[in-house]
Amino acid sequence: MIMAERIHLYDTTLRDGAQTQGVDFSVSDKIAIARDLDALGIDYVEGGWPGANPTDDAFFADPPDLANARFTAFGMTRRPGRSAANDPGLAGLIGAKCDAVCMVGKTWDFHVDVALNIPREENLELIAESIALIRERKGEALFDAEHFFDGYKANPDYALSCLTAAYAAGARWIVLCDTNGGSLPDEVERIVRAVAESIPGGNLGIHTHNDTENAVANSLAAVRAGARMIQGTLNGLGERCGNANLVSLIPTLMLKMGFETGITADGLRRLTQVSRGLDERLNRAPNRHAPYVGESAFAHKGGLHVSAVEKDPTSYEHVDPARLGNRRTIVVSDQAGRSNLLARFREIGIEIDARDERIGDLVDLVKRREYDGYAYDGAEASFELLARRALGEVPEFFRLQSFRVIDERRWNAKDELVTLSEATIKLDVGSQSLMTVAEGNGPVNALDIALRKALLPAYPLLEGLRLVDYKVRILTPNDGTKAVTRVMIESTDGHGERWSTVGVSANVIDASYNALHDSISYRLFRAGGATAHDRR
Amino acid sequence: MIMAERIHLYDTTLRDGAQTQGVDFSVSDKIAIARDLDALGIDYVEGGWPGANPTDDAFFADPPDLANARFTAFGMTRRPGRSAANDPGLAGLIGAKCDAVCMVGKTWDFHVDVALNIPREENLELIAESIALIRERKGEALFDAEHFFDGYKANPDYALSCLTAAYAAGARWIVLCDTNGGSLPDEVERIVRAVAESIPGGNLGIHTHNDTENAVANSLAAVRAGARMIQGTLNGLGERCGNANLVSLIPTLMLKMGFETGITADGLRRLTQVSRGLDERLNRAPNRHAPYVGESAFAHKGGLHVSAVEKDPTSYEHVDPARLGNRRTIVVSDQAGRSNLLARFREIGIEIDARDERIGDLVDLVKRREYDGYAYDGAEASFELLARRALGEVPEFFRLQSFRVIDERRWNAKDELVTLSEATIKLDVGSQSLMTVAEGNGPVNALDIALRKALLPAYPLLEGLRLVDYKVRILTPNDGTKAVTRVMIESTDGHGERWSTVGVSANVIDASYNALHDSISYRLFRAGGATAHDRR
Repeated sequence: MIMAERIHLYDTTLRDGAQTQGVDFSVSDKIAIARDLDALGIDYVEGGWPGANPTDDAFFADPPDLANARFTAFGMTRRPGRSAANDPGLAGLIGAKCDAVCMVGKTWDFHVDVALNIPREENLELIAESIALIRERKGEALFDAEHFFDGYKANPDYALSCLTAAYAAGARWIVLCDTNGGSLPDEVERIVRAVAESIPGGNLGIHTHNDTENAVANSLAAVRAGARMIQGTLNGLGERCGNANLVSLIPTLMLKMGFETGITADGLRRLTQVSRGLDERLNRAPNRHAPYVGESAFAHKGGLHVSAVEKDPTSYEHVDPARLGNRRTIVVSDQAGRSNLLARFREIGIEIDARDERIGDLVDLVKRREYDGYAYDGAEASFELLARRALGEVPEFFRLQSFRVIDERRWNAKDELVTLSEATIKLDVGSQSLMTVAEGNGPVNALDIALRKALLPAYPLLEGLRLVDYKVRILTPNDGTKAVTRVMIESTDGHGERWSTVGVSANVIDASYNALHDSISYRLFRAGGATAHDRR
Repeated sequence: MIMAERIHLYDTTLRDGAQTQGVDFSVSDKIAIARDLDALGIDYVEGGWPGANPTDDAFFADPPDLANARFTAFGMTRRPGRSAANDPGLAGLIGAKCDAVCMVGKTWDFHVDVALNIPREENLELIAESIALIRERKGEALFDAEHFFDGYKANPDYALSCLTAAYAAGARWIVLCDTNGGSLPDEVERIVRAVAESIPGGNLGIHTHNDTENAVANSLAAVRAGARMIQGTLNGLGERCGNANLVSLIPTLMLKMGFETGITADGLRRLTQVSRGLDERLNRAPNRHAPYVGESAFAHKGGLHVSAVEKDPTSYEHVDPARLGNRRTIVVSDQAGRSNLLARFREIGIEIDARDERIGDLVDLVKRREYDGYAYDGAEASFELLARRALGEVPEFFRLQSFRVIDERRWNAKDELVTLSEATIKLDVGSQSLMTVAEGNGPVNALDIALRKALLPAYPLLEGLRLVDYKVRILTPNDGTKAVTRVMIESTDGHGERWSTVGVSANVIDASYNALHDSISYRLFRAGGATAHDRR
């Protein structure tokens, strides 16, 4: 372990990450992400490839002011057959507003022969000339050695000569790319060690892809062999299987290997938020199993184990979640014992004596519910309600009298087959009887709208409530009894708060109503418990 | 690289994988997954922990017949203060129907002191006695060394003495567990090398977790140091950040490192299907970026690159996707769509000339449908119908006029809240108009019954048709347009034949009807195509 040496972090979320299938950054996305990366303490923020598409042109024409990070443009070494000074690609890079330029070039003899179709010696010239020109005009040039590991395995001398050409021409960093993503950590370590005999480790970078699920390990292997720059992306975005995940690498480098980066202890505590914020921007659920920052990364399940964690977290957690802005969670499940339940209570903020006899009843209740098909480990709000109801803390905010949902599909006047869903609901709020009707996209949507229409006058804070996810699964018990339907709902209050509830029934509409009922009750309970009804 | 040595694969999807938040296997899930693992060629299938919960008790009371895999029970070394012969936990393991037993025991001195609270010497005894008893009664015992890497770092001599106690008592495998998941590959390699001086590598296994995104790399590091068993899970399921992902490890071991496993070349071609099948069972979208088996794992972008890939795939792909049952996808390329489609036609048995102009229309239709949210990968019957309809091969077996579904929930005379679903349907079969009504467990069940009630006189072979699975997922498009609902249905004819269909609509009842319609049409088409109507 080398103490207090500096690792330079280079983020390519906005360029290589933008290659991810289904990801499409606008200019304003790029500005916001660049600022997040800068605030985190990333050394280089690669903004894109000016000249490659209108988004990147606009972004580089008016880039965000970054406090610390070097704003970097990506491009290609000059084309064969013209001088660096007359190359339109290089001219675009020189014209871009940026602090540094990273240029990709060939190092695999086979690709020089077949893709570029020029003498190998000429490839060395165009690398050297491009680097020298950019170095002179922009101050800092980086060289991305494309397909380097495959190239080195095929022809080590030639691959190395490409690197030394770039280094001799003044490249600040020589970045070794495993472009196809097929190299394994021991190969990477061996090859980087060999390269470090010609080029100082302090000028070597690593750029890996996750095609064998080793992108993080390959980056660490290169660092062990002397490389001092890592290129990667937030959450491992990137084409195919993604790039090296900086969110996983940063804590390992700083907390386990003792390296310094541009990130402070305060910056590190923003990591969870930066990672999840990117997913929010992409409108996708954050990976709850993500190392260090996932919602489940510090989740504990199983009875005995949980009481031990509480006694001494360091013996069950490899790092302290608070250092990453994450937190420990205690999961309630089939294997729930008393100690899980107590730990979960403390987390939620329920004060109860460990010897309270109601705990035994609640353990039984949870087990019975789970046997019936309820799953509380994905529906924390329903669990909290279950517990607080058993302890008598949750008022009945409203009482259902009946509902009716009608779905009709028929040919309309234009000879189109259309479907309408309509829900009627009767319920009591306090002493008041209410009846409403609503149409919706489907039966659950109609029911949801009718329900909120009835409740809104009494509970105006339900205004912003929205379903953001809805999942159904049929559970087929083995004992031959009837199948049941489990509905999981995720709701938001419209202000960033999200919670999940579950409903189970033989009837999917029933199960959906149960999950909706919990969702609304949870919102009302959270907003002020028993008094919510009076706070109109 | 060590050629043709044998790595033993141990799958713990059904035990450690079942710890994943949100995962909840039923006995029938466990049976199906165990069979998949066996057919793949996994050496050990760990079924669960008999005695820990009712699901595992039921599973071990009547386990599936496996052709090759050793069906393994998990448990704990005996408790302090009683003999192995009188330990109820061990008695449960001895009584379980299985070929081998894996027992976890402590090796970290700190946990022996604090969690077990017994003299360290006594821990060695209970390991040795438990292993010896299981070895004698069940034939094969494995020892899972809990917290081994943390234990070794704290007190190498003691940690090693726990292993040698288990080995001397006859354990076939000593499995080194990185229970908290915090170890890095270089540590793992160094420590396994040290252990291999006392215990032969051919008896050493590795069990890692993904808390630093190094579970795969840590497993490979242990193999480099001599270990010859890897424990992991399908798709890296597991608590917190998951276990080592066998789906990523298997191709690396076999195709890159030259190891033998129990998996044949044919078995390896099932890997993609096994991986995605598990996600389908869990009702979640397969990770399209998964190494080797993800839908995007071999995706190439349009342009120059694509023609280069087509000329020489090996220079742009680290392995051949066909070896894993996966395929190359060319993004934005009509040519590729055409040849994919032709390949699928050949699979289904549709004879069509490659130059038939209808193929172009069908490519467009499939693309438009997939854009709308249809997924034909998991619904082969719907894909076949789509194709055959476009080619004019599928008659209209019946024509829907309208349907209406009513779900009512209300308090009955016994003061119970009950829900009734009733469906009315109007349709034409040939020149005949029919109207039926039925009650069901829920709206889809009622609709299904009413539909078959109307069709049965004309098509008696629908008698045995039953829905066996029903799944709903909300798809939120990236472009911010309205969410749609996708319903996937699995049906059986009651004689072992199963097929899957898909329906998509903003309305879940609509989507369900569409999937039902395809299911019935497929059954009728398969039974004799255009003439089915006449074969009453």
